[in-house]
Parts: sequence; C-alpha cells; structure tokens
Amino acid sequence: MADTSTEADPDEEIMRATYRALREHGYADLTIQRIADEYGKSTAAIHYHYDTKDDLLTAFLDFILDQFKDTIHEVETTDPEQRLELLLNKLLVDPTDHQDLLIAMLEMRSQVPYNDQFRERFRENDEYVQYLLRTVIDHGIKTGVFDDVDTDHVAQALMILVDGARTRAVVFDDEDSLETARRTAAEYVAATLVTDN
Amino acid sequence: MADTSTEADPDEEIMRATYRALREHGYADLTIQRIADEYGKSTAAIHYHYDTKDDLLTAFLDFILDQFKDTIHEVETTDPEQRLELLLNKLLVDPTDHQDLLIAMLEMRSQVPYNDQFRERFRENDEYVQYLLRTVIDHGIKTGVFDDVDTDHVAQALMILVDGARTRAVVFDDEDSLETARRTAAEYVAATLVTDN
Repeated sequence: MADTSTEADPDEEIMRATYRALREHGYADLTIQRIADEYGKSTAAIHYHYDTKDDLLTAFLDFILDQFKDTIHEVETTDPEQRLELLLNKLLVDPTDHQDLLIAMLEMRSQVPYNDQFRERFRENDEYVQYLLRTVIDHGIKTGVFDDVDTDHVAQALMILVDGARTRAVVFDDEDSLETARRTAAEYVAATLVTDN
Repeated sequence: MADTSTEADPDEEIMRATYRALREHGYADLTIQRIADEYGKSTAAIHYHYDTKDDLLTAFLDFILDQFKDTIHEVETTDPEQRLELLLNKLLVDPTDHQDLLIAMLEMRSQVPYNDQFRERFRENDEYVQYLLRTVIDHGIKTGVFDDVDTDHVAQALMILVDGARTRAVVFDDEDSLETARRTAAEYVAATLVTDN
C-alpha cells in the first residue's frame, strides 16, 4: 500500500488514515479521534462520511480488497501456471511491514460472530479471491496444463493455507509462516494440479 | 470434552465452568461473575484460586491442552501412517458443538499481541502438537514407510492447515472447513510423505 496519493479524494484519504491508525493502535483501541488525528482534520470531517466506527471499518475492508484487486491487475500473464504462481505470491509473500495490519485484521476476523457487516465483507473478499483461483485453475484444466481436479476444493485448500499463515503470523509473531505456507502451496499445487506433466 | 467429572476437584470444576461460560458469552463478554454463575459458587471462590480473569484463562488454555493430551493417549497404535492419520483426525475432525469454543479461542488468539500469558500458552500448545507430528513422521522415516522429508516443514505445513481451518470455521461460520482441511492434509501427506511407496 504505497503512500502515493495524488488526488485529494477524501474517502481515500480517510482510508489511508484508518490504515495508519489501525497499524498503530490495533482494532480494540481504534477511535474516530485517532483516525482524525492521522487524517489531520476533525472527527466531524470523518463523521460526515461515516456514521460509526464499524461503518468506517467496513469501508476499510472494501478498500483493502480494492487495493488487492489493483495488485492483481498488475499480473499481466495469462499463462495458467505462471498466473497461479503470481497470485499465490500476492497472497502469501508479504512485506514484513504488514504485520501490524495482519494483527488488526485478525482482531476484526475474531469479531465476525458479533458483527454482520464484518462477516459480509470478509465473505465477499474471500469469495472474490476464490473466484480468481478457480478461474485460473479452470483455465489450466481447459488448456491441458493442469489435471482435471475438483476446482472448488483446490481453491478452498489454498485459502486455508493463506488464512492459516496469516493467523500464525500474528499468534506466533512468526514472519516465516507466510513463506512456509507459500512453499506448502507450491508443493500442493505440484502434487495436485500437475501430476501428469 | 465429556461432562463426566467424577471427583470434585475445584480447579477442574472451575475449568469446566469457564468452558461453559466461554461458549455461552464469548471471550469479550466473559466475567468472573459469569464463570461463578456456571460454577454455582461465589466469585470469591474463584478468586481464591485465580487472581485475574487472564490468569484463569491462561489456566484454561493449559486445561484445553491437557484435554487434548488425554485424547492423544487414547491413540494406541504405533504404526506411523495410522498414528499420523488418527492425530490429524483429532486435530481436524471436530464435533460441531465445538464451534462456540473455536469462536472464543480465535478471540483469545487475536489478543496475543497484547497478552504475553496467552502468547506463551498458545506457543507451548503449538510446540507440543508439532513435537507429536515430528515424532510420528520421524518414526515413519526411520521405519521406511515415509520418504526422507524435511520433518520441521511438514509439521508446520500441517499446523498451517489446522489453524487455517479453525480460523475459517469461525469467520465463515463454515463447519465444512475442518473437513476440507482434513482432506487437504491427507492429499499433502500422500504427496509428500508416501511418494515412493
């Protein structure tokens, strides 16, 4: 998430302020005041756009997904093997400065049983990524580079690895867990998708 | 976790009360009063054993590990393939009535960055399970039923699947995620450990 905001879009500025405030204070200690401090304006300027902290954080989850979509659009290859590899890199090769964000995201995830807005957004994000994975796997099957696998299952298996690595990165303060999951995903893809090649 | 308490061990009674209170109220809304209500005694009776709620919950995490150790001792086979399979069943084939506990555990996990006692216990529990996995894999390698793999990596890969499935079971209210992870673990074990057989 580069800080190269060229336009002064208030929504985007507030999202970037939320990002910084979340990384600094975590979810539980996040307040509109702290986001306003990062934004450099009053809390009223934020409430003009978002009624509640949860509304703002729900918008933030959309923002995170949009950021991810942007990085996916950078992947220009249509070759299924290469495209799957680059997609898994985007999901699992994480710059270490995202650790603070992973902490805040795990707090939000743990609140899902009590927060329908969060649940809906996490679900939508997950469905979008699974859709991308299924599409590239299906493409590989059609062009004969991948075996004729249960696409739904493989996409879910890869997301279990992604979510396990993200949880463990937080709980065990373990930067290596994303790398370990990336290696495991590569082994799993080799064993499941390209066995006949 | 069967409710077959035969002795009136106060520690164990309090742990069982904590278990019921956690499942009913979740971590954030848990109070000593609510545990006392389940225990059927006063809060003073609980404070006699535990100074703070966090002390009590730290003891609860030990209790959960002890419960898990008890179920592991039920696994009587020493055959490495069978033993690994039964171990993965214990970790991933979850009765649905544990969903409430998974929710409370994810809340506690998300608090690890702010709670050293929790961090230490989750780490100890994870190290214990990884030790079990490494031991059975090493045994399989020595007796020639498993390939000569990187035991550390395989144990970590399996724990990523376990933690991913537990996180997803909560975030997506998805009972199937443990089953999907169990199937993925079986595929991964077949591809990684028993390729030469």
